[in-house]
Amino acid sequence: MRKNGLRALWEAERPALNGWCSIGNPLTAEIMAAQGFDSVTVDIQHGALDYTALLPMFQAMKASGATLMARVPWRDPSWIMKTLDAGAEGIICPMINSRAEAEEFVSYLRYPPLGQRSFGPTRAAFGLPGYNVPDANSQILALAMIETADGVENLEAIASTPGLDGIYVGPADLTLGTQDGRLAPGFDRQEPEMIELIQHIASVCNAHGIAACLHCGSADYAARAISWGYRLTTVGGDSRFLAAAAGTAVANWREQTGRDQATSTEGAY
Amino acid sequence: MRKNGLRALWEAERPALNGWCSIGNPLTAEIMAAQGFDSVTVDIQHGALDYTALLPMFQAMKASGATLMARVPWRDPSWIMKTLDAGAEGIICPMINSRAEAEEFVSYLRYPPLGQRSFGPTRAAFGLPGYNVPDANSQILALAMIETADGVENLEAIASTPGLDGIYVGPADLTLGTQDGRLAPGFDRQEPEMIELIQHIASVCNAHGIAACLHCGSADYAARAISWGYRLTTVGGDSRFLAAAAGTAVANWREQTGRDQATSTEGAY
Amino acid sequence: MRKNGLRALWEAERPALNGWCSIGNPLTAEIMAAQGFDSVTVDIQHGALDYTALLPMFQAMKASGATLMARVPWRDPSWIMKTLDAGAEGIICPMINSRAEAEEFVSYLRYPPLGQRSFGPTRAAFGLPGYNVPDANSQILALAMIETADGVENLEAIASTPGLDGIYVGPADLTLGTQDGRLAPGFDRQEPEMIELIQHIASVCNAHGIAACLHCGSADYAARAISWGYRLTTVGGDSRFLAAAAGTAVANWREQTGRDQATSTEGAY
Amino acid sequence: MRKNGLRALWEAERPALNGWCSIGNPLTAEIMAAQGFDSVTVDIQHGALDYTALLPMFQAMKASGATLMARVPWRDPSWIMKTLDAGAEGIICPMINSRAEAEEFVSYLRYPPLGQRSFGPTRAAFGLPGYNVPDANSQILALAMIETADGVENLEAIASTPGLDGIYVGPADLTLGTQDGRLAPGFDRQEPEMIELIQHIASVCNAHGIAACLHCGSADYAARAISWGYRLTTVGGDSRFLAAAAGTAVANWREQTGRDQATSTEGAY
Amino acid sequence: MRKNGLRALWEAERPALNGWCSIGNPLTAEIMAAQGFDSVTVDIQHGALDYTALLPMFQAMKASGATLMARVPWRDPSWIMKTLDAGAEGIICPMINSRAEAEEFVSYLRYPPLGQRSFGPTRAAFGLPGYNVPDANSQILALAMIETADGVENLEAIASTPGLDGIYVGPADLTLGTQDGRLAPGFDRQEPEMIELIQHIASVCNAHGIAACLHCGSADYAARAISWGYRLTTVGGDSRFLAAAAGTAVANWREQTGRDQATSTEGAY
Amino acid sequence: MRKNGLRALWEAERPALNGWCSIGNPLTAEIMAAQGFDSVTVDIQHGALDYTALLPMFQAMKASGATLMARVPWRDPSWIMKTLDAGAEGIICPMINSRAEAEEFVSYLRYPPLGQRSFGPTRAAFGLPGYNVPDANSQILALAMIETADGVENLEAIASTPGLDGIYVGPADLTLGTQDGRLAPGFDRQEPEMIELIQHIASVCNAHGIAACLHCGSADYAARAISWGYRLTTVGGDSRFLAAAAGTAVANWREQTGRDQATSTEGAY
Repeated sequence: MRKNGLRALWEAERPALNGWCSIGNPLTAEIMAAQGFDSVTVDIQHGALDYTALLPMFQAMKASGATLMARVPWRDPSWIMKTLDAGAEGIICPMINSRAEAEEFVSYLRYPPLGQRSFGPTRAAFGLPGYNVPDANSQILALAMIETADGVENLEAIASTPGLDGIYVGPADLTLGTQDGRLAPGFDRQEPEMIELIQHIASVCNAHGIAACLHCGSADYAARAISWGYRLTTVGGDSRFLAAAAGTAVANWREQTGRDQATSTEGAY
Repeated sequence: MRKNGLRALWEAERPALNGWCSIGNPLTAEIMAAQGFDSVTVDIQHGALDYTALLPMFQAMKASGATLMARVPWRDPSWIMKTLDAGAEGIICPMINSRAEAEEFVSYLRYPPLGQRSFGPTRAAFGLPGYNVPDANSQILALAMIETADGVENLEAIASTPGLDGIYVGPADLTLGTQDGRLAPGFDRQEPEMIELIQHIASVCNAHGIAACLHCGSADYAARAISWGYRLTTVGGDSRFLAAAAGTAVANWREQTGRDQATSTEGAY
Repeated sequence: MRKNGLRALWEAERPALNGWCSIGNPLTAEIMAAQGFDSVTVDIQHGALDYTALLPMFQAMKASGATLMARVPWRDPSWIMKTLDAGAEGIICPMINSRAEAEEFVSYLRYPPLGQRSFGPTRAAFGLPGYNVPDANSQILALAMIETADGVENLEAIASTPGLDGIYVGPADLTLGTQDGRLAPGFDRQEPEMIELIQHIASVCNAHGIAACLHCGSADYAARAISWGYRLTTVGGDSRFLAAAAGTAVANWREQTGRDQATSTEGAY
Repeated sequence: MRKNGLRALWEAERPALNGWCSIGNPLTAEIMAAQGFDSVTVDIQHGALDYTALLPMFQAMKASGATLMARVPWRDPSWIMKTLDAGAEGIICPMINSRAEAEEFVSYLRYPPLGQRSFGPTRAAFGLPGYNVPDANSQILALAMIETADGVENLEAIASTPGLDGIYVGPADLTLGTQDGRLAPGFDRQEPEMIELIQHIASVCNAHGIAACLHCGSADYAARAISWGYRLTTVGGDSRFLAAAAGTAVANWREQTGRDQATSTEGAY
Repeated sequence: MRKNGLRALWEAERPALNGWCSIGNPLTAEIMAAQGFDSVTVDIQHGALDYTALLPMFQAMKASGATLMARVPWRDPSWIMKTLDAGAEGIICPMINSRAEAEEFVSYLRYPPLGQRSFGPTRAAFGLPGYNVPDANSQILALAMIETADGVENLEAIASTPGLDGIYVGPADLTLGTQDGRLAPGFDRQEPEMIELIQHIASVCNAHGIAACLHCGSADYAARAISWGYRLTTVGGDSRFLAAAAGTAVANWREQTGRDQATSTEGAY
Repeated sequence: MRKNGLRALWEAERPALNGWCSIGNPLTAEIMAAQGFDSVTVDIQHGALDYTALLPMFQAMKASGATLMARVPWRDPSWIMKTLDAGAEGIICPMINSRAEAEEFVSYLRYPPLGQRSFGPTRAAFGLPGYNVPDANSQILALAMIETADGVENLEAIASTPGLDGIYVGPADLTLGTQDGRLAPGFDRQEPEMIELIQHIASVCNAHGIAACLHCGSADYAARAISWGYRLTTVGGDSRFLAAAAGTAVANWREQTGRDQATSTEGAY
């Protein structure tokens, strides 16, 4: 079983660039994986997809050599184990609020005696040739999301969970979960209190020797995050890339031609 | 049955902006249709999709009010009629090389006695409320592609085919088909001979009162095409939008962070 | 390979009742097949489905014991042979206008030396246990549709085609195709000229020893058709059954409660 | 983000008619949504479908303007949040037995600080233009099912849960869950003790200012339920509509023609 | 509702042969079901499939008459109840570690007052004609997996759970879960301590009048297991059958032709 | 664009081993491609699959490095061009009966001025990095099937068609098509007249410098075919591998346990 590509980068003290798939389609996945990301994550939580789409997406991205991960919808053994059996080399788990939850999450990723994962890597055996228990236990990444007030309060306890490989920060939920509804969700936070919190998480991660990871909306912000100690940054995602590029093309055309949008919706149903 | 949106624009002497779907997925289609295109075309010919994907894509775009069209793989009654029954308001047919082929194509779109279309608008009845034979015959667009030397030679005869509503020009095939292998395929042709040919097609179309339509790769070129007499221009497509936007994000990140692509593919299979 | 159920009924001089599937879904197919039809036909021509849906629909209906047929989109060897390999026991082919077309159609259903069907019953071998060349050639039904003026004119020549087992009449297309646009399409024709034509087709079929089959919209009309010599009648179809039953329930509720439809569409997109 | 259609009706003191989808198919959904229901619910719990089918069904129904809801299989954050991200404007949750369960259920529907929903409305942003946190928190409906003895016992406590918008009553489970196996499951209960219980639930709901909702099998019963204080009634569902209508057609044909069902199953596998 | 085929065999004191489906496809399922297994189990836990694939697989296997079961991913009411509603006649549940977990598992399979299953057999009503509450409660099998140290320790308590019909042993997890990482996972254990444990489980099952079931990799081992008191044995599974047969064909060809594998992968991506 | 793996083998005067996929599923395809075949062909003609399944199958097999081909259902430009755009490196076309048909077939595979293929390698550009017109024209294989009396009679004329790369022989159809119904279809023909014919085709191919290819049922026969001059042999296929391996396991179990098949089908529907 091959070396996990993100572990290799981190051991070489290099930051990693992660791509993000929210569209449930193997062609969009193949296109994303061809762009040169170090890793690509399929978002089962908020992406418009489930297991049925995940499997051919992993297959379509295999030849790219990128490290393939998935975000699961919840700290749920069904989702985590099925996703691993599909060939994931890393799992991002949302809403980890306590040490107990972090331990539970990690246990689902590791075979006994380390954890309670059940054995049956039906597709993983083809996605990751040479699949075996010790390599799976040592190579697959467990990344917990901190995105609530409780999670922040328990950050040290979570970050020191044996077997946990990193913390993945989602700025939208982190903002909603810690600012009492004062701020709207979104990426690339500019508020001092949010920057401070985001920096704090990186510090704690680095102190515990695990990887801090941040979901970003731009390369600029990602570069700043790396300077704060983040070791993996996600920049954008497939549905946003598509909407932004198509929307820009429409705007350019309308500007070039001086034509407002046809009120074609007048004739709509 | 509602008025065809492109006919309405053309009657108002306004050019139209068409979006292009090559990914077989209803979410990418819904995203595209939400960007403000006047019409959206699902490309069954070269797109990575077939009927199974087409149907939910049409359904997902219905609420947008955009005029929905499809390019069929060939002048084939099965494809044309099934696509119409799925709710298409226009058909783009590739590789029309002669008047006879143009007439055959048109006949598949029109119910008797105008043509030979078979009746059974199973889904179209829901996609286009009030569906009926006279409206279907008068509203649905028949757009023929001219993309070979024969097609160009027979342009006048094709353009004057009764019931044909326009010519759709694909610059890639037009270049391959008329320049004897001298030029590589691609959009937004800059060669004088290609520009002349593209302008010539618009002239013939306008002379025969049908719509000249051009597949473009940029809003700039589309604006030029409109000045040449084109009445519908396509600007880019979903798979290109996605690849370009994701590729740019990767390049920006690598530039910002000073990190070349991880040679993560060293560990590939 | 089992005896074709429709042949068995016809040999016993009993008329047959056919069900019709236009929805591409194995559960709707299983529901239809459980209602007691003698045969069920999946409509690939006008139904909202293609091969991808056809296969699990045939599988889901297998246990019912009904004779399973499909209407193909066109006189096209790809469609006909793939549908047969999927396990169809009969093919209804639209738009047969001449003896030559009828012969071509039949040739695609029969293995050499009778025809030109290619051998490879990958799924049919499981759908029809004991599958073999002689039984396939003798049991599978070839039903041609007469629905144009040419078809009617060539009726005798078509009906006498060796290997043709019956004529399937679609009243909607037959009306469009023969009445010069005077009449709107629809089932259960009441016009004397249409009844005469429909009766005439049955007479010619019976004279040539093949089965006359009619698509009907009601049991009443089907009973009349049987008295005219029709040996198979279709009554309604899944999408119509669903729309009619749901629409009736809505109407009843609104009548019972005295509430018009909420103008909820005011808030629509 | 648009006003929730059911809230609008209830504010106008008008009862609502809900449609029910158990077939996992976007065409059946589109057909259902075209019949004039005020809302349509996709049943993920007992329907023959999961997320893969849900998404295109929601897309196919969007243009109808009906309020779109889903019943989830369980009080499970994965299912509830993924369904909301797919664009649901209301969630029906089965088997709520206590105040704690009701609070947990509601928390999954509301963003912090009201609840613990995670932010990422990937498809909802297209299904419900203008999507934002305050509107989502205030417009989306939380409907709990009372269907066990415990649920009935805790009815007051459940009905007074902050943020709960209504109680949805499923008579089949309510009968099984409260009558100790004495009565078979089914809709439109006629037993005095069941009617009393069903009336009691409506009274408690109305006392607490939330909506009582009832799953019915006929318009007649729904009208009675409205007189008891129910504000939303479901009448039938797609799979039942289809089976009933097709079954009736078969019975009519056999009666008209005097032919029993062909014993075609004699030749079955 | 028909008699459960495995119950019938066990009442006749005959051992049963179970087939195993890990590929999410109705054709592979139909092929498997045609081979003469007494029962076929679709593995949702480790198989490369979910509900979307399960439904047409059950439909495709219905005509075979085999008893159809599924292994669910976890002791999760959503998965168990949806699988039952899809028509399963038995559920295998992984990772049962205590009496409380066994009772919880059983409760999800039985309608009240025996358990807490919710009523709505949408597809099961077609898969198992005559479906009703008493038969469902008495015919459907509940099989718990013992595969951890805790499970083994609590074996007696689990085996005596009211309503539990059997224990299904997965040797891979049982080895991982009880041998402290000393032994690699795999079927057909030869180690004396594993054989002893596997025999012990059969003894306890037989003492409590429930069925001991074993997942095997060969007919030889299955025959031994039957001699130890196992009443159902699984032999191999679809993905293993395919890989083994194809791999053998490749090896034979290379040996016959004296050609090593072409180093065609040199040109790989 | 990479060198076609089969061309590389043939240039090195090495025979090739081809795998065959008739099951429409990306996991079975991935399993097949992992077994070490030089090339793998997806059978759209007789396989239980169409374009919807083909695309993810090609994606799932990409990482294996095997040369990926497809057999199309007919000499049909839609099928051939869509399959090429999906990333096929070779097309096998059934039922080529004349030089004209061979030329037509080849023309659909080559871009102008060599042929009439339309340009738009939407997915091929990702499946075959560096995709371009000259390489596509020179690397992609055109393999025609000879399987009728006419095809055999015109063998020389077909084999000398410019641009044709080989003849693929399907023994089942060749037997049906040339022996006047005397012999049943099947692979690995032993009749002297069939062996002579199969040898003759190889001789003609070699004389014209194109590759003779044979569909075989065993490695033994393939080895013989190679000694006759065949340069590619297919050995078995996925659905046959699965059925044979599962059937053998069942037979072994029944023999080992002395138990005939349970007459579980007595209780069947």
